[in-house]
Amino acid sequence: MPDTLSSNVTDVIELTRTLVRCESVTPREAGALQLLQGILEPLGFACERMDFTEAGTDDVANLYARIGTGGKHFCFAGHSDVVPVGDLSSWTIGPFAAELSGGYLFGRGAADMKGAIAAFTDAAARFIARRGRDFGGSISLMITGDEEGPAINGTVKMLQRLAGRGETIDACVVGEPTSSRRFGDMMKIGRRGSMNVDMIVRGVQGHVAYPERLDNAVHRLSAMIEALVREPIDKGSTHFQPTSLQFTTVDVGNPATNIAPGTARARFNTRFNDLWTSKTLLAHLKERIERANEALGGNGTVEYSVQVSGESFYTPPGPLSDLVAGAVRDVVGVEAELSTTGGTSDARFIRSYCPVLEFGLVGESMHKVDEKSAVEDLKKLARVYETVLDRYFVA
Amino acid sequence: MPDTLSSNVTDVIELTRTLVRCESVTPREAGALQLLQGILEPLGFACERMDFTEAGTDDVANLYARIGTGGKHFCFAGHSDVVPVGDLSSWTIGPFAAELSGGYLFGRGAADMKGAIAAFTDAAARFIARRGRDFGGSISLMITGDEEGPAINGTVKMLQRLAGRGETIDACVVGEPTSSRRFGDMMKIGRRGSMNVDMIVRGVQGHVAYPERLDNAVHRLSAMIEALVREPIDKGSTHFQPTSLQFTTVDVGNPATNIAPGTARARFNTRFNDLWTSKTLLAHLKERIERANEALGGNGTVEYSVQVSGESFYTPPGPLSDLVAGAVRDVVGVEAELSTTGGTSDARFIRSYCPVLEFGLVGESMHKVDEKSAVEDLKKLARVYETVLDRYFVA
Repeated sequence: MPDTLSSNVTDVIELTRTLVRCESVTPREAGALQLLQGILEPLGFACERMDFTEAGTDDVANLYARIGTGGKHFCFAGHSDVVPVGDLSSWTIGPFAAELSGGYLFGRGAADMKGAIAAFTDAAARFIARRGRDFGGSISLMITGDEEGPAINGTVKMLQRLAGRGETIDACVVGEPTSSRRFGDMMKIGRRGSMNVDMIVRGVQGHVAYPERLDNAVHRLSAMIEALVREPIDKGSTHFQPTSLQFTTVDVGNPATNIAPGTARARFNTRFNDLWTSKTLLAHLKERIERANEALGGNGTVEYSVQVSGESFYTPPGPLSDLVAGAVRDVVGVEAELSTTGGTSDARFIRSYCPVLEFGLVGESMHKVDEKSAVEDLKKLARVYETVLDRYFVA
Repeated sequence: MPDTLSSNVTDVIELTRTLVRCESVTPREAGALQLLQGILEPLGFACERMDFTEAGTDDVANLYARIGTGGKHFCFAGHSDVVPVGDLSSWTIGPFAAELSGGYLFGRGAADMKGAIAAFTDAAARFIARRGRDFGGSISLMITGDEEGPAINGTVKMLQRLAGRGETIDACVVGEPTSSRRFGDMMKIGRRGSMNVDMIVRGVQGHVAYPERLDNAVHRLSAMIEALVREPIDKGSTHFQPTSLQFTTVDVGNPATNIAPGTARARFNTRFNDLWTSKTLLAHLKERIERANEALGGNGTVEYSVQVSGESFYTPPGPLSDLVAGAVRDVVGVEAELSTTGGTSDARFIRSYCPVLEFGLVGESMHKVDEKSAVEDLKKLARVYETVLDRYFVA
């Protein structure tokens, strides 16, 4: 654990920097949770490490910290793990140096989402300093080390453990970097579903000189790709973008220049809106594929393997979104759009347990080189979170 | 060199078996040429090993054997190399055991084309036995060990060496297995050209959750494949099948399920008729590809790498095809179709030097497991070749 933490534990900038210096690339804990525990316990939080293991996956460390035992329970959810740095030589500043430059804090996790963890910790510390430990409710932090990975040994199992012992949450904000261009301009009240489909297309292999004796699997696959990507799947719904579908790979691996392949493998991902469930969408896509396959004649076949990462979900605007939008408006002077765009997050698991929304920093640099957050945005985020706590736990 | 050759060197069956037992998978000589030399020299052939080397390719052994120094020069061209056995466990009879079973001689090269080499050797031996060494003309065997391989150190260089010393050929028969269903039903008087094109298609890589920020290279490639394979390239010509185009591989190799690829690689082979040269056809295909690319908008690009294996060629029916067709008719009672179908052969090189056609065994099992030739077909082929020599060198 880095020992450079300033004595002012509630300085959001210094706390973010110290967290960034923990090289907690999934699934490494790298001192990040230990650091938080060392800050939260003196504030009065009961800290519980919820580390999980499962055969075939990496062991993952998670932290659940709660102050208060009764009243309304407000949870802040986040992840201390970060994605790999990628091409290190492309970074202009060391990804774990947490340097300040030109008004920005640079480093892996500065935006996604160590900055938000620091902001919420700072907000909670200030709230408790003013209101005392017995403010009549409960605040928790649910921090996983497995959000950027397979998400098997993290939030899902933490939620199950809480539910198993009858512990409920009344409202949850996930600190993902939801702001789009300007801090505060967007929060997420739902997310599209995500599904990966592996296809194995089979025709008949043969020598290219005798096209009448073969049935080229690549030509068959190509017709299927066209059937999936050229005609929109839908036009979007009231709260969601159109469903999108992207092939992520096609692989034949045939080195012979005179043999047409009998088998071709492909994979696509689809991000789907609330007009579909994974089941209804898969049925629709299979129908497109099969129709293209049949139109070619012959006896081509397709084999599917499907992984659903999450169904689409949507929390209608209500008290929680009003609360957060109001805090953003009052602190930043910006009207936050209620959006459902972007990738998946652990909100897809939490939404089964309580009202949830996502709000955080500007995400533009997330997962890229020179990831960064504006120093001013970090300070504003802490004030927004603090305002949310103040208004949620009306004195 | 296997030592199992029967004392009757002109027994076409025994000679084929002994040749099959030489495991002369390209580029290995494996005793095959040495065996032939040992048979041809006593018959009066002057044997010359034409072994060639070139940087970046395997060394290849070739044999040029000629009897006679003047008069008309008839050449028999063939190859002693064979393709690999592939999945050995699928063979019901050892690929180099040369076993006889159910009227067939089994083994790699039985059809393609050690049987034809044996048949021509047998034909020449019988012809010389009847007509004597001074029959007023010249007969040669031009046997390469590099037909199934890159064909760089074989027939091309042998022909160049002959031309370089002023040695001309008046007519050539290549012993490729041209018969289709029944021995004698087809000879080849031309071949389609062959060209391989490698494509690298580039778009813009991106996260699948943000389709508006990416340009999927697979979706771009798919449109190009469609543009190439759905609309016929031509309807064929008087003597040729329609030009065909087969994709042989597509490879992206992207393991990430959330990243849409910015690059996709593909390769296709086209077998083209005499309506095109490789140059005019490539221009046409590029036009199709570029049109599909532009129709998608954006800034997608394609990079090409082209290898031309051979232009199409065609020898109009004439004295040589009449001669061979007549011999087939009289020996077998079958009318040979004059065809231009099938794969490439070394005839594509020889045709620049003299009239050439291809005639040989039933090719159905070539390059497959349990390759075989009917024992009776081998005997008939030797008689056809002998008749050709008799009628070419009219006493």
